[in-house]
Amino acid sequence: MVASTGMLASCSRDPDAPAGVPSNSEPDNEPLKSSVVSFDGAHQAGIATETQASLNLIGFNLRDGVDADGITRLMRLWTEDARALTAGETPLGSLEPEMNEWPANLTITVGFGPRIFDIAAPGKKPEWLHDIPAMNRDELREEWGQTDLALQICADDPIMCAWAMRHMTRAGTDYVSTAWVQQGFMNAYGAIPQGQTPRNLFGQVDGTVNPYEEDEYAEQVWIEGPEGFAGSTSLVVRRIAMHLDEWEMLDRASREEAVGRTLDDGAPLSGGEEFSEPDMEAIDDYGLPVIDRNSHMARAMPPADHPEQRFKRRPYNYNLPPEPGSGELSNAGQIFFAYQKDPDVQLTPVLKRLDEADRLNEWITHIGSAVYWLPPGTSTDGSGDTFWGEAVLSGSR
Amino acid sequence: MVASTGMLASCSRDPDAPAGVPSNSEPDNEPLKSSVVSFDGAHQAGIATETQASLNLIGFNLRDGVDADGITRLMRLWTEDARALTAGETPLGSLEPEMNEWPANLTITVGFGPRIFDIAAPGKKPEWLHDIPAMNRDELREEWGQTDLALQICADDPIMCAWAMRHMTRAGTDYVSTAWVQQGFMNAYGAIPQGQTPRNLFGQVDGTVNPYEEDEYAEQVWIEGPEGFAGSTSLVVRRIAMHLDEWEMLDRASREEAVGRTLDDGAPLSGGEEFSEPDMEAIDDYGLPVIDRNSHMARAMPPADHPEQRFKRRPYNYNLPPEPGSGELSNAGQIFFAYQKDPDVQLTPVLKRLDEADRLNEWITHIGSAVYWLPPGTSTDGSGDTFWGEAVLSGSR
Repeated sequence: MVASTGMLASCSRDPDAPAGVPSNSEPDNEPLKSSVVSFDGAHQAGIATETQASLNLIGFNLRDGVDADGITRLMRLWTEDARALTAGETPLGSLEPEMNEWPANLTITVGFGPRIFDIAAPGKKPEWLHDIPAMNRDELREEWGQTDLALQICADDPIMCAWAMRHMTRAGTDYVSTAWVQQGFMNAYGAIPQGQTPRNLFGQVDGTVNPYEEDEYAEQVWIEGPEGFAGSTSLVVRRIAMHLDEWEMLDRASREEAVGRTLDDGAPLSGGEEFSEPDMEAIDDYGLPVIDRNSHMARAMPPADHPEQRFKRRPYNYNLPPEPGSGELSNAGQIFFAYQKDPDVQLTPVLKRLDEADRLNEWITHIGSAVYWLPPGTSTDGSGDTFWGEAVLSGSR
Repeated sequence: MVASTGMLASCSRDPDAPAGVPSNSEPDNEPLKSSVVSFDGAHQAGIATETQASLNLIGFNLRDGVDADGITRLMRLWTEDARALTAGETPLGSLEPEMNEWPANLTITVGFGPRIFDIAAPGKKPEWLHDIPAMNRDELREEWGQTDLALQICADDPIMCAWAMRHMTRAGTDYVSTAWVQQGFMNAYGAIPQGQTPRNLFGQVDGTVNPYEEDEYAEQVWIEGPEGFAGSTSLVVRRIAMHLDEWEMLDRASREEAVGRTLDDGAPLSGGEEFSEPDMEAIDDYGLPVIDRNSHMARAMPPADHPEQRFKRRPYNYNLPPEPGSGELSNAGQIFFAYQKDPDVQLTPVLKRLDEADRLNEWITHIGSAVYWLPPGTSTDGSGDTFWGEAVLSGSR
């Protein structure tokens, strides 16, 4: 299911992965123990990488007085430490070699918020690097808002994921403080059949429409230039509360109508299987559309004249204790990650369309939003190791 | 490492498990997908079961007016639903068969707080079923205190663990409301070598001293009688904050001295390997004890004249976003689970000794405490399915 995007070459999760030697010495018995996802490459890892089980997404703000030089120093040290941790090596300054031993497909991905450009590279800020326009149905909470930087830490082992968060937070503490942490989860490695699209907490198969092949990533995700930007992308994080108490009052037919897909296997209600093209013209015995025009699928689909409204989805679930006094049985939802070249062109028109009408809206509320530039991948070739955002940060000084 | 405690018979996690047919059809490729831990048996699952990756421990309080009959009805329905969910079947009243498909070693374990006995079986309350005596160093928070009931939900898949919490909470909502949820994690299946004792967030090998064989469980854990109590046990949950910021200021030698074991492999500082007996009389070149008399290990060890001070440990880690305004980089620690026949005799003397002196105390604080009776296991043999606590609840009416 996952294309050979290069990033996955040495990741032993994918049995069909192309060249590259999985570092795991006992693949049958201990699939995770020393599985490694390559850190360096044309793009950062954690974007095209198959979704790992555990997520810590940390929003950081710069401490007062941190200037362009400080940002550069932080990126240099964070890159070095992330390169070591993801390889199962011990970063300089860590007294805990035993905690770094088994990366379990750890990826660490950095994102720059607008203030990083304002301070360190003002002329270079991408035009799309701004708040997603306010939507009518938004109930955004400041606690899940924009930050100066983000680290997306994912691993198939929750202890590794926690440990990497601890290490990176401590490593950066002279420069940044934590604004928020969004913790999420996806199926454990091996918990569902390899390559199967996972289900969200509404029970829906979620994530079918996505780039899978390299040419799809090239078209939708990887920014082409200019220098310092080639190979980068954008990340939009939307925190979406899912109202399970109300959702579970619906019968199965109503749930399927709201989305436009079957619960059983995620196939469009017009027939076929999960990856079949939906037939939006199909009519039932009563002359009504089989797929409701206001179903989530119908509204999210790029219209024929806007094929560019596609992007990479990489969602995580969250499930926290119920908020005291809310009367709700759950406090659950989705941390929606969308990666694309340009959110203004690709994601935002879709969000607007869904905001106007989407039958699913009755059971979901967007409560957080943030946008980041994800610098290109790094390299250890040639004249020395490069660090996150180096070309953009250095060029400005 | 794990003994043949019966409970594990059909759990395909343990390659050395005795009789019992693992339900997993593709063990090499998909170790988790349909791994099942037997629900029925002499004891509840989730106690001797090898620790799964994800924990939701939910503390519930009875809604006003729920009486002995209500408690019995709740136990009957919760038992039926837990039996179905842990087997990968769909409980009555669930519209989500797809979410129940892959239990991933799901266990659901119930605990009764003192009020259950006060209301439903007043003459039968175990003498030890009361708050753990206050310790000098306790900083207990009401939000992590005693509740009427607890469900300990563990699975190797975080989505299954979340889903089971959702289902069981909803199933019980006429009778109970959620007081708190303690969410924890342990290494993912396969993330560290099979049978290896895991590390806590201080990087220490944690959990070495434990019953492993059936006779050790019989001696330390399983209550022998009277009727309705045979096969039951007690659970003490202590929530222990771990002050990582201060801990990480220590060099490795100081960390090892505080615990009395090496960080490398958890061996006692007097030599050998993890499971070697510590030599408390060993003296170094300076004439000082090799294992500090106030190290955590030395203080936690049962004294020679009190060999009964042993119990089953089954700890989970927690790692939440830092508390705003705390100035701390982490909000992490351990959810400490101790199972024993009688906490007054087995656990509490150890807690008191540690409270008086333990070099580790400088870096940890107990912030939560609760005690539960865990009813015996259930059965589907003979004249019909039994439910949690049936003999105790029925006998009182």
